[in-house]
Amino acid sequence: MENLRDKVLKTIDKFSLIHKGSKVLVALSGGPDSVTLLHLLNQLKDRLSVEVAAVHVNHMLRGEESERDEQFVRELCRSWKVPLFVERVNVPGISKGKNVEAVARRERYRKFKEVLESWKGDLVALGHTASDLTETVLLNLTRGTGLKGLRGFLPKRDVFIRPLFEVKREEVENYIRENKIPFVVDSSNLETKYERNLLRIEIVPILKKINPSLEDAILRETEILREIEDFVSSEVKNLVSAYLKKEKFCIPISTVKQIHPFLFSEVLREAYRRISTKELSFEKVQLVRKILEKEGYREIFPHRGFKIYKEQEFFCIEKEGKFEKFSFKVDNLPTTVETPLYRLSFYKNRGIPILTVREFEKNGLIVRSRLPGDRLMFKDFSKKLKKFLIEKRVPFSIRDKIPIVETSGRIIFIPNLYARRVNSPEFIGVEFEEKAESSNSRGEDSKES
Amino acid sequence: MENLRDKVLKTIDKFSLIHKGSKVLVALSGGPDSVTLLHLLNQLKDRLSVEVAAVHVNHMLRGEESERDEQFVRELCRSWKVPLFVERVNVPGISKGKNVEAVARRERYRKFKEVLESWKGDLVALGHTASDLTETVLLNLTRGTGLKGLRGFLPKRDVFIRPLFEVKREEVENYIRENKIPFVVDSSNLETKYERNLLRIEIVPILKKINPSLEDAILRETEILREIEDFVSSEVKNLVSAYLKKEKFCIPISTVKQIHPFLFSEVLREAYRRISTKELSFEKVQLVRKILEKEGYREIFPHRGFKIYKEQEFFCIEKEGKFEKFSFKVDNLPTTVETPLYRLSFYKNRGIPILTVREFEKNGLIVRSRLPGDRLMFKDFSKKLKKFLIEKRVPFSIRDKIPIVETSGRIIFIPNLYARRVNSPEFIGVEFEEKAESSNSRGEDSKES
Repeated sequence: MENLRDKVLKTIDKFSLIHKGSKVLVALSGGPDSVTLLHLLNQLKDRLSVEVAAVHVNHMLRGEESERDEQFVRELCRSWKVPLFVERVNVPGISKGKNVEAVARRERYRKFKEVLESWKGDLVALGHTASDLTETVLLNLTRGTGLKGLRGFLPKRDVFIRPLFEVKREEVENYIRENKIPFVVDSSNLETKYERNLLRIEIVPILKKINPSLEDAILRETEILREIEDFVSSEVKNLVSAYLKKEKFCIPISTVKQIHPFLFSEVLREAYRRISTKELSFEKVQLVRKILEKEGYREIFPHRGFKIYKEQEFFCIEKEGKFEKFSFKVDNLPTTVETPLYRLSFYKNRGIPILTVREFEKNGLIVRSRLPGDRLMFKDFSKKLKKFLIEKRVPFSIRDKIPIVETSGRIIFIPNLYARRVNSPEFIGVEFEEKAESSNSRGEDSKES
Repeated sequence: MENLRDKVLKTIDKFSLIHKGSKVLVALSGGPDSVTLLHLLNQLKDRLSVEVAAVHVNHMLRGEESERDEQFVRELCRSWKVPLFVERVNVPGISKGKNVEAVARRERYRKFKEVLESWKGDLVALGHTASDLTETVLLNLTRGTGLKGLRGFLPKRDVFIRPLFEVKREEVENYIRENKIPFVVDSSNLETKYERNLLRIEIVPILKKINPSLEDAILRETEILREIEDFVSSEVKNLVSAYLKKEKFCIPISTVKQIHPFLFSEVLREAYRRISTKELSFEKVQLVRKILEKEGYREIFPHRGFKIYKEQEFFCIEKEGKFEKFSFKVDNLPTTVETPLYRLSFYKNRGIPILTVREFEKNGLIVRSRLPGDRLMFKDFSKKLKKFLIEKRVPFSIRDKIPIVETSGRIIFIPNLYARRVNSPEFIGVEFEEKAESSNSRGEDSKES
């Protein structure tokens, strides 16, 4: 078997994990992997010209065992003469809930970075091995995650490096035996314990009957997937940067038609992520792809406050400007009122008759956006305006923009949707004109951006 | 549970598997999957406006059992009134060798296409299910195949379609039970029986403890991989077509530097495949990537007869012209001989003295390419020319092009490598000039293409 030290040096070289003069903080749980990693890096520190320290996070989740682990790493680092930082963390909202491990993990990584910063270090070295990678990939494949899941964790990401990336568990075990290195049962690695154990104990040994070099196969495959991911993401970034301006992404439909549907989906996801910091689900992406094939103006609101739409020439993603409520009092005629979607003009004896002159002279009228509790009167019944708009399939996004005409507290007109008609020779009438939506949905940024 | 018929109709629609008026040949082993497929398509034939027939290939590999299966499908098709073609095939080089199933499979698919053609049909429908896909993906992941392996088989490829692509084994079993459909144990599905059984019986049930919808997860993941593959291959095809001319692929180095390394690797593989009909291994691809980073002229011969090289401005792949042996007799002076790599000139009393005038007048000299058995004479020993060239690190590709100068059966001169010097006032001398390799390695196609 290849010497473990040489193998790790190769990994460090292959993925450019550590540069000369770096300060490397080893995340030390006390388990076999992290202890091996610390032992190796501590031995290699002169050769690599690096400074090495360790950090241990005690989550205090398992009482005495946690204390034992902390005590163990303290003694180990003392005897190896490695500076050690110990952080005791109370995971908020404790208990043995399913999420506690995910929370603890996030908390741990946050602590690693904090300690790294205060130590003025460069890198945090994690003890994950090719065996962990194999289990992660199988687990993610089983759960059904996307490309990122299938390629598993990375040899390097941000300040985190994984020098044991290409090392198998057996190699760690041999190294520990040969070098008589003490360790505790890795207590910080509780996450998804049940599922990981199924994989580690039941699945992997059977798969190794088919291919004894299972970990190497997974390493090769994840390498291909990492390369693909890198390629796709560089193509995506080029396109997103080219068409993203000030929190608004607009790409010509003609360009969309030239790029591969897969690339478009990824561009869509990335542009939406940058604008909204939210994720577009697989289903929403499919939906967007479908509207692209349709004629005319189409829009989708994947999350409140964010809009994806296509019009004649452009496909766009933008923040919806937070809409201002409006209210205009009308008491002399003729008057034209500008509202977001409609221009309304009121005349004497012209247009749709919605009010008698007498009523108008007594109460005037108001053009406003809808209010909670609004109701519409019909012949024999009344109905909540909200319910009415839903029944009429008025999209949520424009409900606040529709002008409501009321007089003395009663709704008498909504363009295209509702009109109380009066039958009187002397009446106040309304005429309305729909504003072209496209004129404000392209080119300029929305108010809020 | 969703009605199986509706589910299959959705699959057919989603992947555009069958068009109206098609003639569909169902590959019928007699096993549950193929019998279910035939039952479904036979029921749907009016709705889909298709004509349905079946084909059974009897490999006669398992004696009576093979006969029983053939008999079974004959009776089934008679009772369902489906035209049936039966092909009896003797797999050449029989025996229970490991490869017999792969050979049988290839033979079977060939027969399917033959029958399809003689029936003037359009499509061959195969009974593979989402459960088969799950096993295939897990198997390929374990063995360590690339992207194509991870995405498993396709819903449609060439004339072959898989209408049960999204159907799970349990759904087939329920359908068979509900509709009281007879079947035999699927005898044609012996391939990699041991490994498949490990997956089917041992692995999949455990993974389903983690995710009961395992097949759906795999379907989603393979869909992503198919999309990526399609995207990558369209990008690759664009580049290969742009730079492949008459069995020679030449792409400017400046372009290579602009495209992503992953894309370049795929372009390299595809261009090499088109020129040589051979595959470039992962290692060879890495090697090519490395020479690109180096200065000056570099070349690689991945397979005999095919050359990959980079020079100042271009990176190229080409067929090596098959080299013609050469031999020139020299008997008057001065004479200049043109050989592939060198121009040699022979003079009296000028140049490197390799021959006395007397020797020359008696035997003349020959300039030729090397011959098997050539040996070189040194002071106290002789050495095989082949061994000598290897020791001198002369690349294989140019060994046949090197000019050998001999007189009366003895090698006396090889440019840059060997010279027998004579010490005589009256001598025959040689001068040589290296031809610029680059002048024939760019631009023109090689002789053979």
